[in-house]
Amino acid sequence: MNTISRDTRLCMSLSARPGNFGTRFHNHLYAALGLDYVYKAFTTTDLPAAIGGIRALGIRGCAISMPFKEACIPLLDALDASAAAIDAVNTIVNDDGLLRGYNTDYRAVRELLEQRVPPSTPFVLLGSGGMAKAVASALRDAGFADGTIVARNAASGRALAARCGCAWQPQLGEVDGALLINTTPIGMSGAAEAEALAFPPSAVAVAHSVFDVVALPEHTPLLRLARALGKPVISGAEVIVLQALEQFVLYTGVRPGAEQVAAAARFARG
Amino acid sequence: MNTISRDTRLCMSLSARPGNFGTRFHNHLYAALGLDYVYKAFTTTDLPAAIGGIRALGIRGCAISMPFKEACIPLLDALDASAAAIDAVNTIVNDDGLLRGYNTDYRAVRELLEQRVPPSTPFVLLGSGGMAKAVASALRDAGFADGTIVARNAASGRALAARCGCAWQPQLGEVDGALLINTTPIGMSGAAEAEALAFPPSAVAVAHSVFDVVALPEHTPLLRLARALGKPVISGAEVIVLQALEQFVLYTGVRPGAEQVAAAARFARG
Repeated sequence: MNTISRDTRLCMSLSARPGNFGTRFHNHLYAALGLDYVYKAFTTTDLPAAIGGIRALGIRGCAISMPFKEACIPLLDALDASAAAIDAVNTIVNDDGLLRGYNTDYRAVRELLEQRVPPSTPFVLLGSGGMAKAVASALRDAGFADGTIVARNAASGRALAARCGCAWQPQLGEVDGALLINTTPIGMSGAAEAEALAFPPSAVAVAHSVFDVVALPEHTPLLRLARALGKPVISGAEVIVLQALEQFVLYTGVRPGAEQVAAAARFARG
Repeated sequence: MNTISRDTRLCMSLSARPGNFGTRFHNHLYAALGLDYVYKAFTTTDLPAAIGGIRALGIRGCAISMPFKEACIPLLDALDASAAAIDAVNTIVNDDGLLRGYNTDYRAVRELLEQRVPPSTPFVLLGSGGMAKAVASALRDAGFADGTIVARNAASGRALAARCGCAWQPQLGEVDGALLINTTPIGMSGAAEAEALAFPPSAVAVAHSVFDVVALPEHTPLLRLARALGKPVISGAEVIVLQALEQFVLYTGVRPGAEQVAAAARFARG
């Protein structure tokens, strides 16, 4: 910490309940790469003043988490396509006082989908919340044309389906050879359904691949079952690391190597 | 730097031209004492938004330097007596969103005077700028009743003399057994009169003691002469360290030992 000087750049996060992942991930990479940056998590009860402070203090970048992802938009100067695609910002980059909003969740999800799943694959997306919007938009923009939103909430489910040009249904129907995507809290540590499966074993058995947005635990019940059945998977833990990496690149202009990213992710989880 | 977490508290400074002394001094002491704080210097072109950001982000404390020492006052919630005494703030402490302004220059000067010079000593104070105001107020509040402000600027010289209940004169007269105080840039590194003496040798020879507010170099021509003549001295370098220590205590509630402070000051200068 003695290397911090007047020239050191600050990056930060804003959320109602700050976690430690970002702080540890970014600081670990700064040290590994010898970059003169420091990262620190913050919370606030006054979002406009906090965003004004980012601009006035020349804070280089800021991760935005719940519940500020939409509320921050009118306080920014510009929106990247990734944020405009889903009307939600999870990253602010400050270029000499000009604040631009990005969504690296969207970018990370889209990148993982494009690398791992042919866009001709039909998909079934469970949920209609904020992360469902990021995933459905990434699917649409990655060319996935054949899909269904499954959500008990008819209003948000229908709206999301209309936005992304896919179908909506309140219950899971017959699926075969599909990409199954869970964006609900089912299987999440501490959730009411922490031990439950977001999709029934019969659906997983005939799936093309499985994508669970839940990041904690790293190996959710759904992912464990999918792996046991030999299905390709995309994990929420991968999304978290990749979106944090995209933030890192936006803030510093430096893209670390895969080994460095993996080491930072291990440190950040640990 | 990997020890920074969501719980780490940020302290900072705001000035037009950030230096490195505070950043190095505070971070060195945080590390030495195992305190979960980090310190970073900032500049701004939007003081109200910067101060608003300190409040909204829960930044624990902020050192204020030129040119913000007076301008920040209307943006704060409360003023400590040290700042009210001279209408200038060099330190903000944030207690759960309540911003209180202090002046640790005043506190440091007063403490040094009370420790080193009997208040019955007459004084001659050269200069009438911001630091002159801090020193003259500290002298008054420490009980120094017999003094003269020497300043070519009649308006600011007279105003300061009236404020502190002492005399003003435009030129140095006869002085014997007095505390001589320089608050002008004479003798400062890079100043036009870097090699000059703020007081003539004849005045130093008959002085009680000598106080040079100039901190760079640590050993000004005036202080070197005074020491050579066997006079007790107070140096600007002492003021800088003591005022930074008082900021440290205000921010953390912890008072480091003299050895720790000396080590941090050596590190900060080096």
